[in-house]
Amino acid sequence: MDRPRATTSPAPDLEAPDAPAPTPTSVEAAVLAAARAAKEAQPAIATMHRGAKDAVLLAMADSLVERTEEILEANARDLAAADAAGMDPGLRDRLALTAARVAAIAQQLRAAAALPDPVGEVVRGSILANGLELRQVRVALGVVGMVYEARPNVTVDAAGLCLKAGSAVVLRGGSAALHSNTALIAVLRDVLVASDLPADLIVGIDEHGREGVDVLMRARGLIDVLIPRGGAGLIQAVVRGSQVPVIETGTGNTHVLIDETADLELAAQIVENAKTQRIGVCNSLETLLVHRGIAERALPVIAAVLAPHGVTLHADDAARAILETAGSEGQGLRVVPATAADWDTEYLALDLAVRVVPDLDAAIAHIRAHSSGHTESILTADRSAERRFLAEVDSAVVMANASTRFSDGGEFGFGAEIGISTQKLHARGPMGLIELTSTKWLVIGDGQIRP
Amino acid sequence: MDRPRATTSPAPDLEAPDAPAPTPTSVEAAVLAAARAAKEAQPAIATMHRGAKDAVLLAMADSLVERTEEILEANARDLAAADAAGMDPGLRDRLALTAARVAAIAQQLRAAAALPDPVGEVVRGSILANGLELRQVRVALGVVGMVYEARPNVTVDAAGLCLKAGSAVVLRGGSAALHSNTALIAVLRDVLVASDLPADLIVGIDEHGREGVDVLMRARGLIDVLIPRGGAGLIQAVVRGSQVPVIETGTGNTHVLIDETADLELAAQIVENAKTQRIGVCNSLETLLVHRGIAERALPVIAAVLAPHGVTLHADDAARAILETAGSEGQGLRVVPATAADWDTEYLALDLAVRVVPDLDAAIAHIRAHSSGHTESILTADRSAERRFLAEVDSAVVMANASTRFSDGGEFGFGAEIGISTQKLHARGPMGLIELTSTKWLVIGDGQIRP
Repeated sequence: MDRPRATTSPAPDLEAPDAPAPTPTSVEAAVLAAARAAKEAQPAIATMHRGAKDAVLLAMADSLVERTEEILEANARDLAAADAAGMDPGLRDRLALTAARVAAIAQQLRAAAALPDPVGEVVRGSILANGLELRQVRVALGVVGMVYEARPNVTVDAAGLCLKAGSAVVLRGGSAALHSNTALIAVLRDVLVASDLPADLIVGIDEHGREGVDVLMRARGLIDVLIPRGGAGLIQAVVRGSQVPVIETGTGNTHVLIDETADLELAAQIVENAKTQRIGVCNSLETLLVHRGIAERALPVIAAVLAPHGVTLHADDAARAILETAGSEGQGLRVVPATAADWDTEYLALDLAVRVVPDLDAAIAHIRAHSSGHTESILTADRSAERRFLAEVDSAVVMANASTRFSDGGEFGFGAEIGISTQKLHARGPMGLIELTSTKWLVIGDGQIRP
Repeated sequence: MDRPRATTSPAPDLEAPDAPAPTPTSVEAAVLAAARAAKEAQPAIATMHRGAKDAVLLAMADSLVERTEEILEANARDLAAADAAGMDPGLRDRLALTAARVAAIAQQLRAAAALPDPVGEVVRGSILANGLELRQVRVALGVVGMVYEARPNVTVDAAGLCLKAGSAVVLRGGSAALHSNTALIAVLRDVLVASDLPADLIVGIDEHGREGVDVLMRARGLIDVLIPRGGAGLIQAVVRGSQVPVIETGTGNTHVLIDETADLELAAQIVENAKTQRIGVCNSLETLLVHRGIAERALPVIAAVLAPHGVTLHADDAARAILETAGSEGQGLRVVPATAADWDTEYLALDLAVRVVPDLDAAIAHIRAHSSGHTESILTADRSAERRFLAEVDSAVVMANASTRFSDGGEFGFGAEIGISTQKLHARGPMGLIELTSTKWLVIGDGQIRP
């Protein structure tokens, strides 16, 4: 490895913020060198046994807590810049660290240590007619590239999960978290070195800005998979521009169908939970479909539970007519006419598209046309409708009589989640440690040749 | 669906070979319309039960045999054009059909019908603490794009496997097989229509040439996965240029290591088999590594078994010195100095790179630096060396004491193979029906909401 190992002092360019930005060529060289260093380091962890990996994760957790002050100082620099730039309060809250938050981040590493090791698991196996022993086993992916927002907790979480899964990781967080990420990565790399492992198992490229992402997307042969996490713009840019395999995550234009036979009390609870329990997340509800046969009874009930939360309904003509007749507006609830764009919008806000559908076929067709393939749920008492919905709706997570908010790696019992895949290749739905692995085939013989 | 259904008459543009080529815009419109038609057709097969799918495959097999004459007439037109263009005899042989070959192609469909249905298989499942039932089940991928060479058997094989796995398929074979593929696809589509299924479950785009491939590579949202099969140039062009997820297949720079403790009789048999049993295939041997401690005894034995086959050894200095001392050259065996390029070359010919390595570490490092990640095999009597090789070599298939020629879906017992993946995401190694599926999560509750 030709890259310098981590030290606790900040990188030189942080000391000279007014230095000219590096030229594209030097960014390219630096990011490719970082990716190559990670690739060269990766075999050191690829087949390391679980006990040794867990010890490193626990040492990292301890070291983060011990060095909290240094981390908070770096975070204070990011926060000062954020305040000067007038950062949105929600984003600033995600960026801000406290001693308690650093302790929580350390706890994520301890949780990763407690999880079973996915590497080495035998997936399938048999003995062939000629006596060859055949086994498909889980192995490390190699080098994972993570591209995400200015959330320092993701830096540590992603690094810990990748290490546990036997991979090296190249981290590119939002530039607003540059100092925080640099400090956190320095702590993690110091623990690697103290554990006789190459520091380059964890590499940060935040200092190279967005150009660094462009270089990563072209780093075929060095990066095995790129996982973008963040806004739709970032994800689409990576998905469309990358020559490296990508796992698309996150966008959730999520549907609930209140079927003709739904229990209305249950439906009201689930719709309220799915829409309002937490609004800024990908598994929250965005479009409510209501079967025509129950719409007149269901919509006023739904309106009544959503009104106290201040929800705006973007309703089609049929739904608006029913709500108007029932006098549902008021107490915080607004009803506006739905436009074509509403069916494709992930609001991440107190807005909900509402459409009355004539039957199950129309509901499934609407979902097929407009869903982002994340999560959909049917509320029904009809076993035949439930079976058809579960079979025919082609999304990562398909539910019956449950809140969409359960579409989550933690809720699924994975113990950790690196994102929620909305693509069909490799991983679909919440991604835990298993989804961070590949497989290989072992073939063990005693001299077999092919006739 | 707005595309015309298949008929048995040839497409209009085949009747007018001198008509001007379609403009890029019309190719784009036509290929996107074909992909969209396949996407719209796919739900018809996605959840169809196995019995119905198998009946369609068997009817297709019967129809291919019944309409052999028509298929051979179309093939004769391709062969006439190939002869006029002076096509390479090997390629011509792959293009040529006979009644027996059509029968064998039909038999592939019957074999696909006999395989278990991958769709619906429960991969994992549990009941969560809150009573939610969680199941991960296999589902169809959606629309598969196949890009391959002028081999009419692949047209039918790929279509049959995709249908069995619940997917629609867009087929782009080599333009040299245009008439053959058009005739075969017409037969398959006629059976779909006769089975009350949409013809567009199987769509051919051969008539749009290479531009058609470019359009497919940009058809995000219509094509779920693109599988290129063929020469390295084609595969790399698709892998680097595609915005659609790709499964990289095929290139096999395959290694055998004769370890210090190898049984030489066994080693000679395996090396002869791996190098010469069939030379033009991706699982044939390309580089032989020999442990220094056994090289003096092993190399003359290997040379003796390869000489009758007329193999040329591209040997490093140490190997050449040993072969020279032993007087191994002659009887068809040639020995030439290895160049740096030899370590990265997939010969697909009677050539073999040979290198003497000081130890197991050096062998693993050589493979890491030069392998295409397809298949490697260690020949050894040392259990510790075997365990390390199997664990540390990061290729799709890693063997001990077996011929690399076993790296094959048929040999693995998959019953069918759509290609051999050399990438780490989604599928690695031989790909059968399971690798042609995705998964989704089912979550079944009775009113659960998230606290």
